[in-house]
Amino acid sequence: MESEATATSHKLLLRAGLIRQTSAGIYSYLPLAVKSLQKLERLIDEEMTAIDGTKLACPSLAPAQLWKESGRWNAMGGELWRIKDRKNVDFCLGPTHEEIVSSLMASELQSYKQLPLRLYQTTTKFRDEMRPRSGLLRSREFIMKDMYTFDVSEEAAKTTYELVCEAYGRILKRLDVPFIKAEGDVGQIGGSMSHEFHIPAECGEDHVIVCTDCKVSVNQAIMTQDNSVSSIRGCQLATNCRSHSHKAIEVGHAFYLGTKYSEVFRVTFTDDNREKRVAEMGCFGIGVSRLLQACIEALSPPSGDQIIWPTQIAPYKVCIVPIDTKEDNSAHQLNSLAETLYDTLNDGRVPVLDSDVIIDDRMHLSVGVRLADAALVGYPMLVVLGSRTIENGLIELQHQYSGETEYLTFESLVAKLQTFMM
Amino acid sequence: MESEATATSHKLLLRAGLIRQTSAGIYSYLPLAVKSLQKLERLIDEEMTAIDGTKLACPSLAPAQLWKESGRWNAMGGELWRIKDRKNVDFCLGPTHEEIVSSLMASELQSYKQLPLRLYQTTTKFRDEMRPRSGLLRSREFIMKDMYTFDVSEEAAKTTYELVCEAYGRILKRLDVPFIKAEGDVGQIGGSMSHEFHIPAECGEDHVIVCTDCKVSVNQAIMTQDNSVSSIRGCQLATNCRSHSHKAIEVGHAFYLGTKYSEVFRVTFTDDNREKRVAEMGCFGIGVSRLLQACIEALSPPSGDQIIWPTQIAPYKVCIVPIDTKEDNSAHQLNSLAETLYDTLNDGRVPVLDSDVIIDDRMHLSVGVRLADAALVGYPMLVVLGSRTIENGLIELQHQYSGETEYLTFESLVAKLQTFMM
Repeated sequence: MESEATATSHKLLLRAGLIRQTSAGIYSYLPLAVKSLQKLERLIDEEMTAIDGTKLACPSLAPAQLWKESGRWNAMGGELWRIKDRKNVDFCLGPTHEEIVSSLMASELQSYKQLPLRLYQTTTKFRDEMRPRSGLLRSREFIMKDMYTFDVSEEAAKTTYELVCEAYGRILKRLDVPFIKAEGDVGQIGGSMSHEFHIPAECGEDHVIVCTDCKVSVNQAIMTQDNSVSSIRGCQLATNCRSHSHKAIEVGHAFYLGTKYSEVFRVTFTDDNREKRVAEMGCFGIGVSRLLQACIEALSPPSGDQIIWPTQIAPYKVCIVPIDTKEDNSAHQLNSLAETLYDTLNDGRVPVLDSDVIIDDRMHLSVGVRLADAALVGYPMLVVLGSRTIENGLIELQHQYSGETEYLTFESLVAKLQTFMM
Repeated sequence: MESEATATSHKLLLRAGLIRQTSAGIYSYLPLAVKSLQKLERLIDEEMTAIDGTKLACPSLAPAQLWKESGRWNAMGGELWRIKDRKNVDFCLGPTHEEIVSSLMASELQSYKQLPLRLYQTTTKFRDEMRPRSGLLRSREFIMKDMYTFDVSEEAAKTTYELVCEAYGRILKRLDVPFIKAEGDVGQIGGSMSHEFHIPAECGEDHVIVCTDCKVSVNQAIMTQDNSVSSIRGCQLATNCRSHSHKAIEVGHAFYLGTKYSEVFRVTFTDDNREKRVAEMGCFGIGVSRLLQACIEALSPPSGDQIIWPTQIAPYKVCIVPIDTKEDNSAHQLNSLAETLYDTLNDGRVPVLDSDVIIDDRMHLSVGVRLADAALVGYPMLVVLGSRTIENGLIELQHQYSGETEYLTFESLVAKLQTFMM
């Protein structure tokens, strides 16, 4: 499998044992990936909660009937995974959930007093890609965070739109990755306004044009449809301005939908004049599993020897490697020191479900193999407990991303790591 | 939908706004259900971590090829959701993951030094039930925690088996629900030993026979196959002993698999004599969404007026209801007091993603409606802020499960709720 991987991040995920392919474009997430994904989902949850997002969870099996009502049963073409149940009823595996959420809100929404509503979920989505490739960047089963918003008016919906875009910006800033917010294509989702969030990367499949004069960005896909995009964006792009094209990975997408779905599914409410109105909708997505890999692609060196993680979503921030010495007594001392350090850093919590520290105690593997693994997985901080530790009481701390090495007493090591892990 | 519900717990989940059906046997989880499910998953994670369980996540789309190798592609019959991709390749939507995990371990496992291995996941599973019914008790898309274990020998595998069964017992004890561990049927999964975990309930579809003399329990499904079960269990059941039959909901299942799957998928390792051996396996499941409803069924009164939750998984432990008084000034005072109480109980954390406290500030609804909702949803503690609070400074605390009501000062209320929420 690794031989087929072309993107550096894809190779790294395979080499470091984070994912395994089960079928073309379909992956199992191994424990380190699960740990990182949980942190990423949590980080997104924090920002969604901050804009009054409420979490729900819709099923994967979506009734075809709803997709026929919206017209997307046919429009989606071969990318839609279609399935029949034992009674020959048609379903699809949801690639996105406008239909289900709109139809749900048709019965739940009554009054303007319930609005704005910002519902989101982080669930598995499905898209039968013609050419799945690059690991989690374009896979057929993936994790997506999708939000659906309902507002009383176009103005209110646009305020919501800005709020969600700002939250997306904060998420990417917290991940310490460079990103571009660009005007985008409305595609199969529809609506009248759309922005994409891109992480620049050579292996990306999108081309984003950034005008350094006007500070606007646009997906080149729009420009090829209409060469006079300047009118859309108030920029002389491609004429007088200095623009740069970036290859990029799309990790987020915002759509102002208007009433496209709310009319079809009759998502209405009574306004403050007791008149029935159709809700204004927006929908917003972050490709969670794709974002995980895109961060690795953006931050890691192209050599493919080491994952560099956004600190916030490294599977563990600290790895402790006790080195097997030939003397039984020292080995015992080092293992016991590793445990003490582990317990101290975990603040005595048991079980250590949320631990940010891992001990590599696979003592049947050589020191070389374990240190190379620690470098490859890219734990930001590596603590090496070896014979020197026993001789002079100093512990080796490797900052794996800067290459810096320090020798610290137990107390100063703990203090430094506790600060780092906060 | 509610009219079709027969189980009390199913009616309650619908009435309290926790779930909505999107197709027969397929549900959306609304925010309160998501909150409770997250707590339940976390509780299970804690107990799985305590027995050295490591979390992974396998895809829903399982290649038919693996299921044909195990022989279950045909054996599962109509319950298996089958789907073809755009290239006409067969897949199924995994109802369980012995095939994927075994095939994964075939390439990951090398040495006995890696064993025991206890891998688990909490993911969406699929089963095309002929007659989906009773809400989450028998649905076609559900959440399951499944664990797959690998050991060096039958003896070691049986030790693992006992450990997992004990963890299942601890999970059910922490949920404060009565349960029965019974000998069970190996069914489609296979293997030579099996135990089921049942919650007694009238709407349950299993019959569990409990012998009060010999302290053994068995699923009646086994007895009808073989009337002389006494030999299996060392009990004179149905002859001299006093036995009771319970209708029950199966919420957990343990299987000792031996080498049934590891032989097919060549899950081998080198033992300490450098000889190649086949790993001994076990598999274990908890129906997470089913367990959520089974707890409600077991604990709530049959009247269907109120959910009683296991405290550990109540969506919120405390609900604050500020009562709208006609005087603007008092209303302002009460809302501000509600906020202060909320912030104090959340210990100043923002955003309050993990908050166990909710304010029902839907001031456009009458007090009666909001108090009835709070009773129905079954928050264990209900704080009512009304005119009496302003008059004498005392706050009303309703213990919703016992019916007890107290009037407390702000400080003693906070102290009492902080203790309760720990």
